[in-house]
Amino acid sequence: MLIVMENNASESQIADVVNLIESYGYKARPIPGSSRTAIGIIGNEGYVDDTQFINLAGVKQVIHVTQPFKLASKEFHPEDTIVEIEQTKIGGNTFSIIAGPCAVENEEQIFETAEFLVSHEIHFLRAGAYKPRTSPYSFQGMEIEGLKLLAKVREHTGMKIVTEATDVLSIEYVAEYTDVVQIGTRNMQNYPLLKKAGKIGKPVLLKRGMSATLQEFLLSAEYILNEGNGNIILCERGVRTFDNHSRNTLDLAAIPVLKELTHLPIIVDPSHASGNRRHIIPLSRAAVAVGAQGIIVEVHPKPDKALSDGPQSLNFENFVELIKQIELISNAMKLKVPVIYE
Amino acid sequence: MLIVMENNASESQIADVVNLIESYGYKARPIPGSSRTAIGIIGNEGYVDDTQFINLAGVKQVIHVTQPFKLASKEFHPEDTIVEIEQTKIGGNTFSIIAGPCAVENEEQIFETAEFLVSHEIHFLRAGAYKPRTSPYSFQGMEIEGLKLLAKVREHTGMKIVTEATDVLSIEYVAEYTDVVQIGTRNMQNYPLLKKAGKIGKPVLLKRGMSATLQEFLLSAEYILNEGNGNIILCERGVRTFDNHSRNTLDLAAIPVLKELTHLPIIVDPSHASGNRRHIIPLSRAAVAVGAQGIIVEVHPKPDKALSDGPQSLNFENFVELIKQIELISNAMKLKVPVIYE
Amino acid sequence: MLIVMENNASESQIADVVNLIESYGYKARPIPGSSRTAIGIIGNEGYVDDTQFINLAGVKQVIHVTQPFKLASKEFHPEDTIVEIEQTKIGGNTFSIIAGPCAVENEEQIFETAEFLVSHEIHFLRAGAYKPRTSPYSFQGMEIEGLKLLAKVREHTGMKIVTEATDVLSIEYVAEYTDVVQIGTRNMQNYPLLKKAGKIGKPVLLKRGMSATLQEFLLSAEYILNEGNGNIILCERGVRTFDNHSRNTLDLAAIPVLKELTHLPIIVDPSHASGNRRHIIPLSRAAVAVGAQGIIVEVHPKPDKALSDGPQSLNFENFVELIKQIELISNAMKLKVPVIYE
Amino acid sequence: MLIVMENNASESQIADVVNLIESYGYKARPIPGSSRTAIGIIGNEGYVDDTQFINLAGVKQVIHVTQPFKLASKEFHPEDTIVEIEQTKIGGNTFSIIAGPCAVENEEQIFETAEFLVSHEIHFLRAGAYKPRTSPYSFQGMEIEGLKLLAKVREHTGMKIVTEATDVLSIEYVAEYTDVVQIGTRNMQNYPLLKKAGKIGKPVLLKRGMSATLQEFLLSAEYILNEGNGNIILCERGVRTFDNHSRNTLDLAAIPVLKELTHLPIIVDPSHASGNRRHIIPLSRAAVAVGAQGIIVEVHPKPDKALSDGPQSLNFENFVELIKQIELISNAMKLKVPVIYE
Repeated sequence: MLIVMENNASESQIADVVNLIESYGYKARPIPGSSRTAIGIIGNEGYVDDTQFINLAGVKQVIHVTQPFKLASKEFHPEDTIVEIEQTKIGGNTFSIIAGPCAVENEEQIFETAEFLVSHEIHFLRAGAYKPRTSPYSFQGMEIEGLKLLAKVREHTGMKIVTEATDVLSIEYVAEYTDVVQIGTRNMQNYPLLKKAGKIGKPVLLKRGMSATLQEFLLSAEYILNEGNGNIILCERGVRTFDNHSRNTLDLAAIPVLKELTHLPIIVDPSHASGNRRHIIPLSRAAVAVGAQGIIVEVHPKPDKALSDGPQSLNFENFVELIKQIELISNAMKLKVPVIYE
Repeated sequence: MLIVMENNASESQIADVVNLIESYGYKARPIPGSSRTAIGIIGNEGYVDDTQFINLAGVKQVIHVTQPFKLASKEFHPEDTIVEIEQTKIGGNTFSIIAGPCAVENEEQIFETAEFLVSHEIHFLRAGAYKPRTSPYSFQGMEIEGLKLLAKVREHTGMKIVTEATDVLSIEYVAEYTDVVQIGTRNMQNYPLLKKAGKIGKPVLLKRGMSATLQEFLLSAEYILNEGNGNIILCERGVRTFDNHSRNTLDLAAIPVLKELTHLPIIVDPSHASGNRRHIIPLSRAAVAVGAQGIIVEVHPKPDKALSDGPQSLNFENFVELIKQIELISNAMKLKVPVIYE
Repeated sequence: MLIVMENNASESQIADVVNLIESYGYKARPIPGSSRTAIGIIGNEGYVDDTQFINLAGVKQVIHVTQPFKLASKEFHPEDTIVEIEQTKIGGNTFSIIAGPCAVENEEQIFETAEFLVSHEIHFLRAGAYKPRTSPYSFQGMEIEGLKLLAKVREHTGMKIVTEATDVLSIEYVAEYTDVVQIGTRNMQNYPLLKKAGKIGKPVLLKRGMSATLQEFLLSAEYILNEGNGNIILCERGVRTFDNHSRNTLDLAAIPVLKELTHLPIIVDPSHASGNRRHIIPLSRAAVAVGAQGIIVEVHPKPDKALSDGPQSLNFENFVELIKQIELISNAMKLKVPVIYE
Repeated sequence: MLIVMENNASESQIADVVNLIESYGYKARPIPGSSRTAIGIIGNEGYVDDTQFINLAGVKQVIHVTQPFKLASKEFHPEDTIVEIEQTKIGGNTFSIIAGPCAVENEEQIFETAEFLVSHEIHFLRAGAYKPRTSPYSFQGMEIEGLKLLAKVREHTGMKIVTEATDVLSIEYVAEYTDVVQIGTRNMQNYPLLKKAGKIGKPVLLKRGMSATLQEFLLSAEYILNEGNGNIILCERGVRTFDNHSRNTLDLAAIPVLKELTHLPIIVDPSHASGNRRHIIPLSRAAVAVGAQGIIVEVHPKPDKALSDGPQSLNFENFVELIKQIELISNAMKLKVPVIYE
């Protein structure tokens, strides 16, 4: 950590900083510059909390050299995490496809989708029972009834279920009925929910917040890890920018950066990024090529009757084309698609 | 609502849109253009859900002319809402100051602050008991013990307490012990929490999400209104942009725009916007001048010892200067400061 | 075009809009809504200038259904443009690689790079002679001497030269000495320069502005097309967002969107997007996979001695790995790499 | 400057950095941390160019403690610059109003506006003769004829003329005919134009780029200062963000930050920030209150007939109200409005 002093910081202000550093048992190393002094800290193990330093008179800025997350970092845990979900897994050298409708709408819709997916060797079904919708007047999901339908699908097809939890109460039901608990973009900094997700004993799919930096993203994963749950799948799903040609701006460059910073597997959601089914296939190809370890994608038997996210849902024909193209790129990349555990 | 067709939309696709419009009991008015047709809807009362339309083949885009929020809109409720909190109020022609430390830290700190504020005729105390912190290793708040201290302050000083609730469980305690329940920026789209806030019978201070549009902001207010709670105070606290000179980019232009769109009172948080105590006073002057109905500002007896947000907290001397300068501008604007209910 | 009236627009204000529409020879089609009236325009050929409409009293908003660019649009020119540069070409089903150092630094550096590239069948050399640098104290380029060195390289190696022009005077020299004139991101809306680029008789590589929408990007291309020059290569190079993990946020989703909107070829600049040589290869793979028609990439014989952009420049060894990996993906995509004209 | 090494940097890589620092005549001070080493530089006078350092193997990041601009900085030039334009001035404790139409359209329009402004003691007329327009099909300005009309207005009314130059050729005419040369937002990083602006001997009004950081903004001013022209007026005009309720997001918090960083006067353009005439007055009040030293605002005798920017132009009646309200706030702030040189 480096503490940069104001231009006109006095000798006694510098001494105060040095004393505070030493009170923590670290060593202080002042670096007098042309216009201001900076003070380095030596001897710390890991991240030093800057609260007390930044408060001191004469301090202009505190610069961190070490990342503030630890359990999520590759430095702490160099080996890549592979999340195992019964006989399947996410991470490592496989490319996983999680697919399904935005929301569970009724038994017919969800079974038709699941059976179609299984017939194409897709083993992860996504579908929301609790839907965080921008407007209170939009369809809010089937809630507990939706979870029960998902459990029924699971029993009949053997698919693994990925579904979203939106609060500290419903997460218990979600964890009970499904295989992977999704924390959505709007809840990436819902810390009570993250803490609870750390305790539910099921893998967590954590979506990046709409305007979260990667550091904030990994600190949210750290909340879950810190409660003892290391089975976390990160998901890049587009961020909010000035750009208006797609629903969100898909930040594929985050993938190689995350792979340097963390051991957790990283997948991509091209559906919410684009908002337009015509662009899902090229973005999915790019996700494979950039090194993501999977995608989560919306598919619906009748997108034009979907109760939510219809415009960004693939129909079955599109989906068959999608997996064909993903296979082309992943073969070139030497990944296995879709994922079957050996 | 206007439905814009693709360039190459067929006659039968256009007919499908017209039929769907008519099935809702509205009239369709096609507008053939040089390169594509658009179809207007006539006869609707308020916002029309676009889900089914955007799903239809040949539809390029749906353009809304009406706002999707209703209860929060000025069209529906032309008179300005004034939120009454016992003998005080927020909204109308008064400029309210809500002040206090980021977090309750201990009895001495919170009493010292409250007594100082009361002596300057400030009647709203802000202080967090449940703190949503980016890192799990940062101070997380005193929780229930903090709420009890705030209740004690309230009893001894008569100050009204504003404090944050972060999940559907703790909001009940918060509502019991305090006067105004704050929903923070990270929870602006935490819909289960908003629904609960709609039922707790206490006024709600709703902060704008870090990257929320004004439409999303008002739809979040709509969630609360829709549960029967109309006592909502909106708060602009800066948005996330490429800009790096302040903690967030304070969007003061949102104030006059919100005043056209909604009847709810709007205040500004210069502390979280700036992140730097030296800029709080000019931003507060600007908040008054642009037409905001109050500010919520961080003040701490010893900012250099604060457990959170020290760098953006005013000390008592700064605060006295702040209210002096606010008074100058609000007098010029003919607002009353600070707020006392007549 | 749709003109949306204010809620309280009077009958006579609506009549004024109708009259203005009719004065242009179009037909007006009013659509009375629940809370406001909208008026459609029928009979226009292409984009209608909205200046006069938006000025009228009672008008709230003008909504365009037609795109404002014409010559750049796929609707106007459905066949894909292939830019021919002597015996080579950019566009169509080939994937082009333009490579070289950020700046021409001296004869040895530029010849060493060119000969290396030629030996790997790369036929386009990029290198700046006029450098737009953020600080006046940074190396500003070799200017005319740099252009002469580039011409010499061209003569000896047969490579095609791509270099930047930064003002209406130097563009004449640039066009004289080189094969493709680059307009950089900071000049995307330098309209006098664009107009000049439309007249110089050489292909133009137009980089997207740092915060330009795709509509603005294509309108800048339209300036060049409108002066008679249709040989334009578009280049996505990352946009500016809140994100801080890479130099810019590479917007790969723009590629499929641009391919729907325009007939012009589109390439990607992973170097300026990322700012970090370690991420160039994954981003380049993704650029191929998403459907871009080429990349422009920085390579330097000794990146650690580069006068600019060292951290994002590949060394020769990295570059060999890059083309190997691009070939893998482009083979899967059935593109030819690198480009040789048959 | 602080050089942060990679985690796994070797001793010899650290030695290379130390040697390079010493080769410049500075002292190196290594700071070994828990996971990586950082190396401070001591003994430098001002900003050190980081190009060579960032290129070295094992270097992760270079952190600057000193600002990269010098002539524009308050550290170098502590006294506030007041730009004198004949008998008037901009800067210091006065609040200046620059007003006029977006573009010179014809003699009647510009004279009517100028005479109206003079009658309200406004002494700076803004009006564009060279217009940078997003579309090539929009009105491009009257060019040289426009400049001549402005010169005629100047002669008859005594107003000082502020008008935009868009390239290195036309800037000479602009400088000849007018008093203040404006560099627009799209040209903030047009370095050949900035260099020329540094040599023309007239004050320059430099607008902030659409997505420029304050550091980039001041480095652009530095280009002008570096050529010997210190008469620069900075102008905040809104930046581009995800926000869509106004044309740009007005960054008023930049004003107090700039006032700490630079000695140059700073004004605000509420017209381009908002895009909506209804919000100009509240934003102007806020500009005064936040500490700006003036505004540049669009006013037109008949906004509904304007050839550009009609929706954001005030009419004469609005303008009278504007100056009345500015006066209220500036009196509270003890600034003089409008500006007359004593």
